[in-house]
Amino acid sequence: MGSTATCYIQWFMYYLGVDIGGTAIKAGVVDDAGRILESGRIPTVTNDLGAFISTLSGLIRGFQKSVQIGAVGIGVPGLRSSRTHIIETSPNIPCLTKVPLEAELANQLQVPVITQNDANVAAYGEFLFGAGRGARHMVHLTVGTGLGSGFILDGKLFDGALGYAPEFGHTVIDPDGRPCACGSRGCIETIVSATGILITAREKMANAPPTSDAVFEAARRGDRAALEVFEETGRYLGIACANLINLFNPDMIAIGGGVMASGDMLLEPARREARRRAFGPSFDHCAIVQSTLWPEAGVIGAAMLARDRLN
Amino acid sequence: MGSTATCYIQWFMYYLGVDIGGTAIKAGVVDDAGRILESGRIPTVTNDLGAFISTLSGLIRGFQKSVQIGAVGIGVPGLRSSRTHIIETSPNIPCLTKVPLEAELANQLQVPVITQNDANVAAYGEFLFGAGRGARHMVHLTVGTGLGSGFILDGKLFDGALGYAPEFGHTVIDPDGRPCACGSRGCIETIVSATGILITAREKMANAPPTSDAVFEAARRGDRAALEVFEETGRYLGIACANLINLFNPDMIAIGGGVMASGDMLLEPARREARRRAFGPSFDHCAIVQSTLWPEAGVIGAAMLARDRLN
Repeated sequence: MGSTATCYIQWFMYYLGVDIGGTAIKAGVVDDAGRILESGRIPTVTNDLGAFISTLSGLIRGFQKSVQIGAVGIGVPGLRSSRTHIIETSPNIPCLTKVPLEAELANQLQVPVITQNDANVAAYGEFLFGAGRGARHMVHLTVGTGLGSGFILDGKLFDGALGYAPEFGHTVIDPDGRPCACGSRGCIETIVSATGILITAREKMANAPPTSDAVFEAARRGDRAALEVFEETGRYLGIACANLINLFNPDMIAIGGGVMASGDMLLEPARREARRRAFGPSFDHCAIVQSTLWPEAGVIGAAMLARDRLN
Repeated sequence: MGSTATCYIQWFMYYLGVDIGGTAIKAGVVDDAGRILESGRIPTVTNDLGAFISTLSGLIRGFQKSVQIGAVGIGVPGLRSSRTHIIETSPNIPCLTKVPLEAELANQLQVPVITQNDANVAAYGEFLFGAGRGARHMVHLTVGTGLGSGFILDGKLFDGALGYAPEFGHTVIDPDGRPCACGSRGCIETIVSATGILITAREKMANAPPTSDAVFEAARRGDRAALEVFEETGRYLGIACANLINLFNPDMIAIGGGVMASGDMLLEPARREARRRAFGPSFDHCAIVQSTLWPEAGVIGAAMLARDRLN
């Protein structure tokens, strides 16, 4: 009888995954198989911690009313210390700086809460239930406004000594290149990102459109300069992939994020350039693919990380 | 009685570490505490597999006569498959290409033999008994003719899906930079290595000396152009460190190899540049130090890897 009861409870255990972005917070109730059963979305409050916490806890309480939540996992943009569990910095959501978000929310909601970097939870979701299923060593890139990265090494999410890894988007690919928001120069993110695409478009196009989506639309219509923008961005994405292949000899590089709507327009030049640059046996082993869970990978990964910490 | 006997045998268990270089093979009998008790050295045969194996097994048999060897660990320059245990390529020792060196030697010597990439065994030695003692995440660089690298992640030697990782020296830091022996361009190794120092010297010095050691001597004597060569090499070493710090948020970067005889002449500009480029909290946490075991780290690490596989 005892084991039947345990089994019954496990069967109905759900986890809440939260993905905090600069403009919106997304959340979803996720089961053990990585399926999102219910989801919601609210705008992000960026400059008032009290309002941030009360809107977020309101969102979570709404889910708690309809279903039993075992634990809450939250992906946060910024550096989260794995020692103190405090959000050290969050450039796009300044009110989160130095905030013990886990403790605050756990206290209010009476449920275990864990936080992790947003690019890391996306990598974890994609590894468990997306393109990365079956991989042991995998790199996940999120090409959006910036270039996020997550590493799965030996089947586990890797986040370094203090939880601040990885920041592959902020590795230098051109020492005297474009200035980067991080204070360095020539970081890969200054080229391979929506922001980078816009700068490249201004360099190459007579009348550069105002958004990277519009550059993509122009390329789709066959605009030669816009196509060149994607060709060059793809070439740099390929150099990035070659670096990752030589560093990790991974099973897979999975790439998601809004910019990847352009698909093969980036992936084809990327694979060509990576083949020219990387060690042959390591390149041959590594699949370079689009992620399959974007934009839900973060919600799913955050929920599953909460599950793991609970068990 | 049984446990006393076991204890007695363990006390006297020794391991042989072998470090194969392009010109010489070094070997040493190593105890459980990482001490080298006896050592030897022979020239490397590079183009005749039969002669290579017979001189190497002769060297090992010499040690076996004087002491009981529990296992042999061998660091090999090149790509060694962790699946098949075959040496896939070894650019400086062509006769080793596609050779099952472990099986060949184990068969002849009747002792367990394991192989691993030479930069990886050096990293492992330095981690266990050198500068890296107590670290959990550590990168080890060997600045010699080329730029070797080894990663200790979560206390374990990391070598990727097929055993070909890491090749940090062959990550691109300047897409249109110097041509690299690997076929790519602008790899860090083309600048941060003895070979790179010589090329930089030819760019900056009116009468460039014929070796990187001589460039170092000139810098020590205060030659301004030679000092600039080391300043620039150090600056690129710093960019390399910043990339590693942002990638891994490691506890330590330890740097060994012949070129590091120049010590602070490289390390000071390297630390300055890394501080400017890397994320502050991750930089502050990461010690950038000289390795303490070079040139013995490889022999010690290879022996300890053999011990680990045995136990």
